[in-house]
Amino acid sequence: MRINTEGKFSRSAKSMKRSAIREILKLLKNPDMISFAGGLPSPQSFPIEEVKEITNYILDTEGEQALQYGATEGDASLREILLKRHSRQGLKIGPENLAVCTGSQQALDILSKILIDQDDYIICGLPSYLGGLSAFNVYGAKLKGVPFDEQGMRMDKLEEAVKELTNCGKNIKFIYVIPDFQNPAGITMPESRRREILAIAEKYNLLILEDSPYREIRFDGEPQKMIYELDNSGRVITLFTFSKIFAPGFRVAWLIGNPLIIDKFVMAKQSADICSPVLMQKIAAEYIKRGSLDKNLAKTIDLYRNKRDHMLDCFEKQMPESVKWTRPEGGLFLFITLPENIDGGVVFKIAVENNVAFVKGSVFHCDDSGKNTMRINFSYSDMNEIEEGVKRLSGVIKTCIDKK
Amino acid sequence: MRINTEGKFSRSAKSMKRSAIREILKLLKNPDMISFAGGLPSPQSFPIEEVKEITNYILDTEGEQALQYGATEGDASLREILLKRHSRQGLKIGPENLAVCTGSQQALDILSKILIDQDDYIICGLPSYLGGLSAFNVYGAKLKGVPFDEQGMRMDKLEEAVKELTNCGKNIKFIYVIPDFQNPAGITMPESRRREILAIAEKYNLLILEDSPYREIRFDGEPQKMIYELDNSGRVITLFTFSKIFAPGFRVAWLIGNPLIIDKFVMAKQSADICSPVLMQKIAAEYIKRGSLDKNLAKTIDLYRNKRDHMLDCFEKQMPESVKWTRPEGGLFLFITLPENIDGGVVFKIAVENNVAFVKGSVFHCDDSGKNTMRINFSYSDMNEIEEGVKRLSGVIKTCIDKK
Repeated sequence: MRINTEGKFSRSAKSMKRSAIREILKLLKNPDMISFAGGLPSPQSFPIEEVKEITNYILDTEGEQALQYGATEGDASLREILLKRHSRQGLKIGPENLAVCTGSQQALDILSKILIDQDDYIICGLPSYLGGLSAFNVYGAKLKGVPFDEQGMRMDKLEEAVKELTNCGKNIKFIYVIPDFQNPAGITMPESRRREILAIAEKYNLLILEDSPYREIRFDGEPQKMIYELDNSGRVITLFTFSKIFAPGFRVAWLIGNPLIIDKFVMAKQSADICSPVLMQKIAAEYIKRGSLDKNLAKTIDLYRNKRDHMLDCFEKQMPESVKWTRPEGGLFLFITLPENIDGGVVFKIAVENNVAFVKGSVFHCDDSGKNTMRINFSYSDMNEIEEGVKRLSGVIKTCIDKK
Repeated sequence: MRINTEGKFSRSAKSMKRSAIREILKLLKNPDMISFAGGLPSPQSFPIEEVKEITNYILDTEGEQALQYGATEGDASLREILLKRHSRQGLKIGPENLAVCTGSQQALDILSKILIDQDDYIICGLPSYLGGLSAFNVYGAKLKGVPFDEQGMRMDKLEEAVKELTNCGKNIKFIYVIPDFQNPAGITMPESRRREILAIAEKYNLLILEDSPYREIRFDGEPQKMIYELDNSGRVITLFTFSKIFAPGFRVAWLIGNPLIIDKFVMAKQSADICSPVLMQKIAAEYIKRGSLDKNLAKTIDLYRNKRDHMLDCFEKQMPESVKWTRPEGGLFLFITLPENIDGGVVFKIAVENNVAFVKGSVFHCDDSGKNTMRINFSYSDMNEIEEGVKRLSGVIKTCIDKK
């Protein structure tokens, strides 16, 4: 007799849903589809020849170590060069502040594991990165969303939410923020806003989880200090990744935080995957050491800036007047707000029939709001696809508006 | 003011301990140390030149895909070749039965996440693989250990334990077994024992988690059927890994199971690390496709057989008569039983002072028993180190016995 598998799942498994984004990516096998859906870097940004050269070098010089188990906290050469690079950027931290992980998503997962108990509250943006929200959910967190203005999370609404939850005796563990070129909203918090959020975290004794995958992909404007740099109380944990500045297929990322958190993180990582892929870590280290990261990053920034500009141009020319969108200073995404009565989910279905895809904005809203929003990626498609894709998309949106 | 970090940790984090084994590995930086402690493959088994050649080939032919995000369930080329290889071995499964993961340890972690609720029971061997036990612990499982005879878990004791827990209304989720060359005991279950364990699992409606990292490293004797092959009720999940047959630094492993479990596994993996390292997966796929896995595996088996034989010889010659050990037909470990009144932890301390290391057996016992046992790895050290290491170790043990 077959086993009743459903009866065996944990409570957390029973509530798991497939990631809306990952599932959309599967729809996109159709070669005629133009996809603004994923958060994929452009393959043009991948330094394939250099990876080849560096891999050969690593295998020649450290082959045995590269194929063996590595340290849970990360390969020593990678940790060292990351610390050096942070120091050049003005951030003074030691090895006790840094650990390597298998993609930022692993950091989100493990931090959730070591911080969240069932029914703890996490404060996040409305909207916010879906992969973060899913990770928190798995560990039984309740999510409280805070609406945005053009500088990110609204501070009045944040304090209101924190106060209310605290007064009800709820346990808030951390505020989840993506300060630079937020995914999905494309908004950057100015330093003043970062200071305010830190002040609230201090006042109510909260941690801040600062997710920073896009920080180095800035097209224009001045870099704003990381919340980590503004803090001197050890309450900020910041996540970085090679996925958007080098190669996501490597699954190498890192995080910085106070030593007690990093120590517990490493402990939890031991039973999560023992260590991150060692060869990949060594390649990444050498890639920085040779100066290639910074050199290629400059090219990637130029590439993405052109794509963003082109997409904004196409939007200007094609989109119905009642549609609004953000103009990100960096990153991979812009965010569309449709007229109130237009549902992004409906637009999505018709768009896919017309061979253009995106992610409906409601999936990034923990309270299921944002029905009239859409996330648009501009890093993956080439210039022609951007032009043609926006043409298709604006046609679909026009039809939807005209029908109402 | 510094944040009180301790107060922020989850219940599960508060109970986390550093892995005894990973911590020992750090002690071994001393170049004079001979280590029988880790479960490290021999660097001699790493096909470095072939990895170089294959990596160049993959980067030339599929460079863009190898550096991009990949499918959560695993790279299509790897999944296909794994299914083909299983089919050649007589195992008929489809793509819905298989998923790739970031090392077996990730499978242990994610399966725990999707199966275990706080205070569920897991049945495991006395002794059992520490990484498994830690993963179960993180999700709040209670562990019930079942003692071994020379064929593995004792079936009378297993049924007794299951009955007792069931009668007390406890929820048992699965039985955790390592049927081939068990870590740490080095014991292999004959087919009859596998059938018995399956019958008990069926009778009491339990899942079986069959951890199979060493199965293909058999020195002598006949391969015994996997429990997965004996089952037709969908209750067995089996874990495989490239770590012991190719390269642990790759962090590529896979699991097979009934489609509902695999589906939920993939869902949970999305929020754990999105996907496993893609380049590593593609290298592994090509390594199998070229026939290199099977060719090199034969060499690795010869290498480890020689090491085992040499270690057993040295044991015969050097060890005091009151010391017993297992004679594994494969795998990486043998297991020492000291006289009852000798503590492996005490032996360990003196051994390290004498530049030889191992893992005390009690860490593999969920009930803290097995104080007079020791796990010995024979795959990592070379022939001279084995000889010298056993000399040192038997000297230390003799001293400990003589002192009593």
